[in-house]
Amino acid sequence: MNTIFEGGITSPKGFLAAGEACGIKKNGKKDIAIISSIDTAVAAGVFTTNKVKGHSLQVTMEHIKSGYSRALVINSGNANACIGEQGYKDAVEMAGLTANLLQCEPEEILIGSTGVIGVPLNMPSVRSGIRLAVQRLSENGGHDAEEAIMTTDLRPKEIAVEIEIQDAKVIIGGMAKGSGMIHPNMATMIGVITTDANISRGLLDKALKEAVKKTFNRVSVDGDTSVCDMVVAFANGEANNSGIVKESVDFEAFKKGVEYVCTFLAREIAKDGEGATKLVEIAVNGASSEVDAYNAVCSVAKSPLVKTAIFGEDANWGRILTAVGYSGADFDPNLVDISIGSLMVCRNGCALDFDEAAAKKILKEKEIKIAINLKKGQYSDRMWTCDFSYDYVKINGSYRS
Amino acid sequence: MNTIFEGGITSPKGFLAAGEACGIKKNGKKDIAIISSIDTAVAAGVFTTNKVKGHSLQVTMEHIKSGYSRALVINSGNANACIGEQGYKDAVEMAGLTANLLQCEPEEILIGSTGVIGVPLNMPSVRSGIRLAVQRLSENGGHDAEEAIMTTDLRPKEIAVEIEIQDAKVIIGGMAKGSGMIHPNMATMIGVITTDANISRGLLDKALKEAVKKTFNRVSVDGDTSVCDMVVAFANGEANNSGIVKESVDFEAFKKGVEYVCTFLAREIAKDGEGATKLVEIAVNGASSEVDAYNAVCSVAKSPLVKTAIFGEDANWGRILTAVGYSGADFDPNLVDISIGSLMVCRNGCALDFDEAAAKKILKEKEIKIAINLKKGQYSDRMWTCDFSYDYVKINGSYRS
Repeated sequence: MNTIFEGGITSPKGFLAAGEACGIKKNGKKDIAIISSIDTAVAAGVFTTNKVKGHSLQVTMEHIKSGYSRALVINSGNANACIGEQGYKDAVEMAGLTANLLQCEPEEILIGSTGVIGVPLNMPSVRSGIRLAVQRLSENGGHDAEEAIMTTDLRPKEIAVEIEIQDAKVIIGGMAKGSGMIHPNMATMIGVITTDANISRGLLDKALKEAVKKTFNRVSVDGDTSVCDMVVAFANGEANNSGIVKESVDFEAFKKGVEYVCTFLAREIAKDGEGATKLVEIAVNGASSEVDAYNAVCSVAKSPLVKTAIFGEDANWGRILTAVGYSGADFDPNLVDISIGSLMVCRNGCALDFDEAAAKKILKEKEIKIAINLKKGQYSDRMWTCDFSYDYVKINGSYRS
Repeated sequence: MNTIFEGGITSPKGFLAAGEACGIKKNGKKDIAIISSIDTAVAAGVFTTNKVKGHSLQVTMEHIKSGYSRALVINSGNANACIGEQGYKDAVEMAGLTANLLQCEPEEILIGSTGVIGVPLNMPSVRSGIRLAVQRLSENGGHDAEEAIMTTDLRPKEIAVEIEIQDAKVIIGGMAKGSGMIHPNMATMIGVITTDANISRGLLDKALKEAVKKTFNRVSVDGDTSVCDMVVAFANGEANNSGIVKESVDFEAFKKGVEYVCTFLAREIAKDGEGATKLVEIAVNGASSEVDAYNAVCSVAKSPLVKTAIFGEDANWGRILTAVGYSGADFDPNLVDISIGSLMVCRNGCALDFDEAAAKKILKEKEIKIAINLKKGQYSDRMWTCDFSYDYVKINGSYRS
């Protein structure tokens, strides 16, 4: 059983963090974060599948290959992407400077950058920011670090859970940023998971990948995926459990804990989607294959017509069925049932004479569930998204300017 | 050479049309159209690939199999989709009634319906509308018919061209509706092409399919495709040319004419995209395959982030490169050039220090061209889309209510 408490990435033992403002963001908000383990931790990561990859992300993908890491440096306000050679050099310099200050190898430092694409990093600011953040590293710095990675996020996304395994209590903490350009594999999001569990690198990697698939890779805000997305997990062993080295009961408990943390953060991202007024959970059941279930749920979650209808609190289920129709999923339109909340609005592909007032009431809620049953097989999937509002257009019409 | 003139589907010889208001639309606007050839015409069609298909469309797909048709009846305001058996019966009745009035076989009548999904047709209105429209059929009825098929369209879309073939002058007319739920294969669009050419059914079909691929299937407003989309072409032979029965010079001239008509209408659809303030043409060159070119152009044309940036007149080319990045196309990010209008903003995957004022000036235009060169191969594609504005959200947040 997980015990959830207020906290974040510095809740597990042996993690320090800081978040500072160094001048990358024009508005003076916090823009540089460091998360550090007091001793080298095993590390695992999941990275964007976009063919274009930011320079900082490229460096991180190389450094994480060893499986060990001391710290993660993240700047917001600039994606450090599409700059050419200089961008890569800047990321290498960030790692080198941090390693020097923390007295470790540059390869033990991971780098994340998020923000505008195609603008060179302001390196004098970055350098002074890294120096300041290393000085300020503290056991209470988790929240500051979260604030420093936010871009268009309206609220911080943090959580910590305590799990019991055979001979110890283990804490898993997490934080994330992400609000727009959100779609599987992966969104403009950065997620950081820290834990004091003593676990092998291979199993940390496995737990993270499985959790990400079901959580962060099941959030869609606008169908766009960015060049800087990553979720990184650190485990430093400070909980002094006897070590999770095989797929045991302890591993299952650990995995459940990681999934809990990732689920919480993924839902927070959808809720905080740019301009979002509602969190929408789309579930597809009865698909003939895993791929069909995914394609169907993905197509509905991405549809601007479905999302604007939800913003307008309009039970326009025809758009939901239509989106399933062009998803590529194999199904029989004459079998499909669709429910909005507890109200079935379409049975066997046909309109039901449902109570419009009841539908309106459900659609006025802040969290809405849409369930689609294809009644064809045994496969299911679900995805979180949000509605599509005027503010999405406003936020994204003037992001760069 | 094509001569373009003001006109539409009744410009070719031997076509009559009418558009009337019969009460399907609550606002009293025209909602029923009939397009009829004075004698049986050869007919060809292209239909939605959505697995969910409207009942009227299903009837049309059956009736067009013979290759001959006398008339097309279209109602707007109701898609006649997802109603169950009654919807199919209603479409059959529409064909039967029209056939009876025009004294032909029901199989010679094609039916189109566009509008809200899941609501049964108001058949008393439809019946009186068909009776009235048949009475009013006239050589000057093209524009009325166009008005009667519009839903959220802000303006009619019509054109006629005259082409010269060896022994005659041939006229090709066209009209279309479509504004939202627009994406290849096919959009919520209906297109009607009429011609007095004497051409075999096989070659009419071939000319139409090739034109549609390059035109209507290269328009994206929001990535959604509907259940009622169709483009239908009629050729009645009234021009008395000696008959196009093989792939001759005459066939090439005819095909060019059809493509011209379809290109015009497709661009009009993008321009009139729901809430659109700008027509955007995306071109991808230098792709390694036809599929890569298509995937890349499609991904950029669909991206809400690209489309909101254009609405905001923000030269955020990073989003363009990012959309190519997740398109699935095979390319090297370090080779990509991107231009907005005549201004190159990214070379070899890197930011150029371009003149922001010049970019702003280009983005203030009503028609914007974006060119992406992958510099990897010989394949190209292009697609029309529009920007994504507050009004898209407004229009689609309350369509059904």
